[in-house]
Amino acid sequence: MLTTWVPGTTPETPFSIANIPFGIISSNEDATLRAAIAIGEYALDLKQLSQHEDFGNLFPMLNSSADVFHQPTLNSFAALGRPIHNQVRRVLQDLLSSETSNPAVLRDNDELRKKALLHQSVIRNHLPVSIGDYTDFYAGYNHAYTVGCMFRGPSNALQPNYTHLPVAYHSRSSSVVVSKTPVYRPVGQILLDPTAETKQPTTAPSRRLDMELELGAIIATGNELGSRIKIDNAEDHIFGYVLLNDWSARDIQMWEYVPLGPFNAKNFASTISPWIVLADALEPFKTKGIENKTNVQDYLKESLTENVIDLDLEVELTTPEGNTTTISKTSSRNLLWSFPQMIAHHTLGGCPLRPGDLLGSGTISGTELHQKGSLLEMSEGAKGHVTLNGGDVRKFILDGDTITIRGAAGAPGQKVGFGECVGRIYAPKVI
Amino acid sequence: MLTTWVPGTTPETPFSIANIPFGIISSNEDATLRAAIAIGEYALDLKQLSQHEDFGNLFPMLNSSADVFHQPTLNSFAALGRPIHNQVRRVLQDLLSSETSNPAVLRDNDELRKKALLHQSVIRNHLPVSIGDYTDFYAGYNHAYTVGCMFRGPSNALQPNYTHLPVAYHSRSSSVVVSKTPVYRPVGQILLDPTAETKQPTTAPSRRLDMELELGAIIATGNELGSRIKIDNAEDHIFGYVLLNDWSARDIQMWEYVPLGPFNAKNFASTISPWIVLADALEPFKTKGIENKTNVQDYLKESLTENVIDLDLEVELTTPEGNTTTISKTSSRNLLWSFPQMIAHHTLGGCPLRPGDLLGSGTISGTELHQKGSLLEMSEGAKGHVTLNGGDVRKFILDGDTITIRGAAGAPGQKVGFGECVGRIYAPKVI
Repeated sequence: MLTTWVPGTTPETPFSIANIPFGIISSNEDATLRAAIAIGEYALDLKQLSQHEDFGNLFPMLNSSADVFHQPTLNSFAALGRPIHNQVRRVLQDLLSSETSNPAVLRDNDELRKKALLHQSVIRNHLPVSIGDYTDFYAGYNHAYTVGCMFRGPSNALQPNYTHLPVAYHSRSSSVVVSKTPVYRPVGQILLDPTAETKQPTTAPSRRLDMELELGAIIATGNELGSRIKIDNAEDHIFGYVLLNDWSARDIQMWEYVPLGPFNAKNFASTISPWIVLADALEPFKTKGIENKTNVQDYLKESLTENVIDLDLEVELTTPEGNTTTISKTSSRNLLWSFPQMIAHHTLGGCPLRPGDLLGSGTISGTELHQKGSLLEMSEGAKGHVTLNGGDVRKFILDGDTITIRGAAGAPGQKVGFGECVGRIYAPKVI
Repeated sequence: MLTTWVPGTTPETPFSIANIPFGIISSNEDATLRAAIAIGEYALDLKQLSQHEDFGNLFPMLNSSADVFHQPTLNSFAALGRPIHNQVRRVLQDLLSSETSNPAVLRDNDELRKKALLHQSVIRNHLPVSIGDYTDFYAGYNHAYTVGCMFRGPSNALQPNYTHLPVAYHSRSSSVVVSKTPVYRPVGQILLDPTAETKQPTTAPSRRLDMELELGAIIATGNELGSRIKIDNAEDHIFGYVLLNDWSARDIQMWEYVPLGPFNAKNFASTISPWIVLADALEPFKTKGIENKTNVQDYLKESLTENVIDLDLEVELTTPEGNTTTISKTSSRNLLWSFPQMIAHHTLGGCPLRPGDLLGSGTISGTELHQKGSLLEMSEGAKGHVTLNGGDVRKFILDGDTITIRGAAGAPGQKVGFGECVGRIYAPKVI
């Protein structure tokens, strides 16, 4: 079992040496945005590391393009392709290993260690990639079914296309923000009485502000306009994964979404976790997703039957008073479609994916109330509510509430996880 | 009446001296992407111009940031804001005017004129901005009504929200291409018999490939997450306009679009015209759009009642044999919502717009068959057809067909227009 010499690395950290997730940081001492990896309670500043005289020899796969770690986003690194990412990860694992083959570079190099190994309390995380396009799929079968029942009734809950293709919509890249960025409750058009004969909207702050627990994939290498990514190559195009909270205003959505899909209900903010966990780091945790009994089209048929990642996921709600409750525990197994299937479908007609693009899985929910990925489901369409520790209740999210998502796989000491995806809701700046 | 000394500038050119549209070019002699404006049959290379010793004095509003014209996109120039764009335009108009106050800079400067004034036949146009997000509205009332009838029947043609808010969806920025870029017919899931009880899709090249005639607005300055652009300031956030052909695969759309909107039916390509016509150049051509009898929400109420641009638009179809027919003539008056209304709605919940973002108007159609902005409408849902010169017919677009959109306003000699937005359809690269 691989262990690290980095101090304070507990068995419970999602950033074990088996992980090595990549992000973009700045620090009090250096405001420049630059690349880093997370290890236990620390971040290793890759810009600092790249200034070591042996860097070129240690990382020959970077072919002297160490400046990928000097940039304010990871897009150029992502574009190098998955084999390079994993080779870089392997060298970093060796440098950080208790039994490193190269102690002189970092472990026993006081000067570099002090400059490059920064406690996470003194750094700030930034959006790790510039996201060209953000596509949100709808592959969480249990969510799609439950919400479909609420919006359209059980007989139309899932459309006839649902098991034939990974349903998706284009979402908004400009409002994807990194964990801890304040999120403002959106103002929008809502129907106060959706059942009334006359549909007269009001403009007001959303009263049904919700979260959505998702897994996001970040694209490595893309494809040209008019070309296609075949399903059995699709894994090679994934840089890594993030946790994604696709905040949703249900009352705005209900009124606006017909016939062209959600718009202002979604585009006010989507929060992602700061560290991108490489696809290779999650490779050992593949499993079967939800069985699809439909005989899907050939371009969606996978050689691998175990192609969905098995992460333990949980959602916490913290009240303005600081009272924290775990409101959901579920698994990313709860997907009908794998990311390779999503990529094969996305590019079927020749749509170009680009390095840094974000694909959301859709809301991940189990079948039970305490396994749901949205408050809409947990509160059974606001007929019920979620009971918090101490007796407070929520149908939806209130101003001052904080939602924290966590996700990890693996045994203690070898955990591969995301850290936290956190967002606090603030009242609108302008009403 | 302003006239220009630039040779060969005919009364019919859309690039009269009253226009001065901005684009990104390269040339055989210099492959570098750089800024230019169009004047008659020529492009004026702004990178070359910026190397003139008096450039700083001529363009003090650029405040020494002439490098906005050395970049491969116009995003930085767009971000300077509309007053700067118009001041730059005014100086360029003077330099190009027959009665220029500064003949020594360009008109009488043989050396610079030869280097900077390039015939359009020796340049290549590139995408003028890097588009962060592309939003497509649905403000073409006649189109929305006619297509709504086909997809959902007359009683549900327009949803109850349609006259209350400018309906929109997020579209795909990675597949926005500049005029003349080859467009590949998309492969997708389609239902060969949509009326059959069992919905069994087939994967095949689209059989109902269509165009959509739209006007696109490009954003100048944006807004921060959580802030809003008020309707009476919204004009200030528009850099300029382009023609937009939002190619659409109707059979793919029909099967995939419920419940989250169009996806692969749209994301294979959207073509824009190469030159961005500044908002100020189109200011004299404002008129009333289609009357909205609904008492809209306050945030959508405009002080200006004439806020829709009145451009003459036309669509040509050229067969593989080179036979060209004008298949539609209409006007951009046919919009229910103005761009300021679209911007006010887009940012109502705090969604950030960024310089270079593209907003499509939605398909622009008149009420008559020969005024429609899509073949779906012209062929009455494929029940009829469009008859071309010489007797050929089309229900939808065939491989090898070329669609050309043109648009302009103003009197001969003073025309303000876009040049051509051209796309030819090729068979899929892979089936």
